[in-house]
Amino acid sequence: MNLYESLAVKIEERIRGGSLAIGERLPSIRNLGRQENASPATVVGAYELLKSRGLIEARERSGFYVASFAAPALSEAKAAPGFVRPASLDPEDLILSLRQAMHNPHIFPFGTAAPMPDFFPIKALNRCFSQVLRDEPATVSEYRFPPGAESLRQQLRKRFSGMGVRLAANDIVTTSGAIDAIGLALSAVARPGDVVAVETPTYFGILQLVRALGYKILEIPLDTELGLTPQRFQQALQKSAGKIKALITVANFCNPLGSLMSDANKRQLVQLAEDSGTTIIEDDIYGDLAFDGTRPKPLKAFDSQDTVILCGSFAKTISPALRVGFACSRKFAPAILAQRAARVSGVSALAEEALALYLDSGHYERHLRKIRSAYHTLTAQYTHAILSHFPAGTRVSRPQGGFVLWVELPGKPDARLLQTKALEKNISVAPGPLFSSNHGEYGSFIRINCAIPWTTQAQKAVEKLGGVIARL
Amino acid sequence: MNLYESLAVKIEERIRGGSLAIGERLPSIRNLGRQENASPATVVGAYELLKSRGLIEARERSGFYVASFAAPALSEAKAAPGFVRPASLDPEDLILSLRQAMHNPHIFPFGTAAPMPDFFPIKALNRCFSQVLRDEPATVSEYRFPPGAESLRQQLRKRFSGMGVRLAANDIVTTSGAIDAIGLALSAVARPGDVVAVETPTYFGILQLVRALGYKILEIPLDTELGLTPQRFQQALQKSAGKIKALITVANFCNPLGSLMSDANKRQLVQLAEDSGTTIIEDDIYGDLAFDGTRPKPLKAFDSQDTVILCGSFAKTISPALRVGFACSRKFAPAILAQRAARVSGVSALAEEALALYLDSGHYERHLRKIRSAYHTLTAQYTHAILSHFPAGTRVSRPQGGFVLWVELPGKPDARLLQTKALEKNISVAPGPLFSSNHGEYGSFIRINCAIPWTTQAQKAVEKLGGVIARL
Repeated sequence: MNLYESLAVKIEERIRGGSLAIGERLPSIRNLGRQENASPATVVGAYELLKSRGLIEARERSGFYVASFAAPALSEAKAAPGFVRPASLDPEDLILSLRQAMHNPHIFPFGTAAPMPDFFPIKALNRCFSQVLRDEPATVSEYRFPPGAESLRQQLRKRFSGMGVRLAANDIVTTSGAIDAIGLALSAVARPGDVVAVETPTYFGILQLVRALGYKILEIPLDTELGLTPQRFQQALQKSAGKIKALITVANFCNPLGSLMSDANKRQLVQLAEDSGTTIIEDDIYGDLAFDGTRPKPLKAFDSQDTVILCGSFAKTISPALRVGFACSRKFAPAILAQRAARVSGVSALAEEALALYLDSGHYERHLRKIRSAYHTLTAQYTHAILSHFPAGTRVSRPQGGFVLWVELPGKPDARLLQTKALEKNISVAPGPLFSSNHGEYGSFIRINCAIPWTTQAQKAVEKLGGVIARL
Repeated sequence: MNLYESLAVKIEERIRGGSLAIGERLPSIRNLGRQENASPATVVGAYELLKSRGLIEARERSGFYVASFAAPALSEAKAAPGFVRPASLDPEDLILSLRQAMHNPHIFPFGTAAPMPDFFPIKALNRCFSQVLRDEPATVSEYRFPPGAESLRQQLRKRFSGMGVRLAANDIVTTSGAIDAIGLALSAVARPGDVVAVETPTYFGILQLVRALGYKILEIPLDTELGLTPQRFQQALQKSAGKIKALITVANFCNPLGSLMSDANKRQLVQLAEDSGTTIIEDDIYGDLAFDGTRPKPLKAFDSQDTVILCGSFAKTISPALRVGFACSRKFAPAILAQRAARVSGVSALAEEALALYLDSGHYERHLRKIRSAYHTLTAQYTHAILSHFPAGTRVSRPQGGFVLWVELPGKPDARLLQTKALEKNISVAPGPLFSSNHGEYGSFIRINCAIPWTTQAQKAVEKLGGVIARL
């Protein structure tokens, strides 16, 4: 981090902490430079950065002011964990329509948690594919079997080791993506009918999976900033008489909240799970996307008894088209491997070798720095735009990583109706009810994808969406 | 087919029909030419072809003789369908060791049903991958969702239509290979605990899948030449009081027998399934590999009421590394799609588009002609070698397509012990007990892969294996 970036972080902390209020005038360039022992250029750099992130705004001939970014906090989700009896409304159709909208280039993709192609290292990845095709043509002519390519599992082992997670390559099974990894992990530890705890709100793909595999769903409400707290998990254990077979959790920047579990909470949660015989299935798919650049540890780093199965993929950072994910645990690797081997006769060596090559190239860390900063800026820009163009009373999440916003609309409009109305205007949004199996929840929430370049078109899309909401 | 090929077919029929016995001298070139109104060149061509296939042999200065190819028929499998209580011996380890052996280039791969890279169109496929990477870089940067690439589903629709199977592209869901297709089809029609009928002997991957999904397995013995007969299915229905939820069958050149169901039997089987409310899950993965070049119809071609889900992939003909298969049925497509969408968040657009491009190029039919003929010849050559070098009394299947042989060893040696002993000599074989969930079955059978070029090394491997068997 250079000087003006450090200064910007300092100022941001004051804004978020409340010592600089919305609308308050920031110190002049000269004053702040004196206070912070910084050159005018550094202060200007910091202010410009904060401006570009929508945190502060310049008023002509008057200086900088704290923008209305510092959004009012979301309402708390329901306070107690609860079992869910899936309602009659079939969410599969809503999901299908959301996914179909994704491939219509005329539809503005607020609805999907997928970065636009601009944010993927297409050229570098493409080179890796070409290199594998050229140097190892056998990768398209041979069966390769689970647990997957040794080269990739070695790369993963190395990465995890840098995060404090000790694994051998043989503890890692490659999968057809993160959801497949979670599904295999579930099948390895639980039988249909068992209680599986999930977070709420949570990514609808997780709910879809848990439903399809026939588990009993227990939803545990998240704290909007802290994510899943040990207290809430404790309550859930009590509610279910301790019979939670597995817990699926996204400790780092969960979708849709972007919240981050503290290290202390992570340690405590793993301990609780261990004591209660619950296997944690950790989805770390957003872990590489911390706004502040610090890679948070996975839960698996606090796991001495192999209570955690670490799952994930690079679908949010390298490419969603690889269809390569991973599930890691020494204890459960044989069971996961057996599940995987029973379901597919082979694995895609081409994609696995290309991914291994890319990870080995060193390009990934540079790429991450670029997109982390872009997502941070974009998330702030979209927050600012939403608070400016959506009806007064709109509340927005304060993610600490990832690239999505969780937006609570005032006046209780029906988000599912909004999905339909917005689609008529060629804008997709993900309606809140998808994020719980209990369809009464999140009726007036939507999730907004911010990994979309901030253009005039984007600005217009926010305005148009604000108009649709106002008319509901 | 040219003149000498037709003549060769005629002679082969006589040999197989028994009117020309093993060891019998064939007519002289002049005599046969007169009988068949064929030129000497045509007769020589036919004899050379039969020789190359191991059906006849030349003896110096004495003419051509029927080789010992016309193997004694296999013993019949157990005559009645039966429920299977999986024995205590865990077959997963045997399968794992088989698959691990596959990647050791020092091990001669008799044990896998996978052609050597020589038999795949690597260059042409590689060009298709490169073209997709060059022309459609978005395929590595975008989520693509089930049911899969429209281009591929259109190509499949066209192919099936040529086989008398009428489907719309929307009736087709792409999958991560044939076993994944069968698993999704099963999940769409049956619940854990339901009765699923399988053939016996059958590919162990199917058994592994059915076990992992928690179904009750009913095994129906195959006729060694006719495959699954309607009579046997009828018996199975009676045995299970009509409660067979799904039947997994490989009508065309099943692995390991290579048998072919007749069209009349196919029609009757589909009718029986329809009447009894059983869904047929058809695995057509070997259908393109008929020795006589005639593409047999899938069961699905005889299906007016959507009783059949047609599954398969191109793993045996184009590449086992694509990890792209298909499941087809108008009625069940929505349920299969729901299962697929719940298990994976996306599909591999790169592999699907490359495959579609390859199928569209017209290269496939040429390639099939080449490998069908090669597999026919190789299967005969290996049969001949096995009968020459294995202990007297060895019996060999008479496949009509595919590229594997099912070999019954005399004197009841333990095929699992043989697997171990052969591996010590760097030869893999697939032991018979893997091909049934009832581990008492096929104790002295092995499956032999013939899609391996016929070289001195191959010849030595057969001899060495014969030696291992003799010493057991």
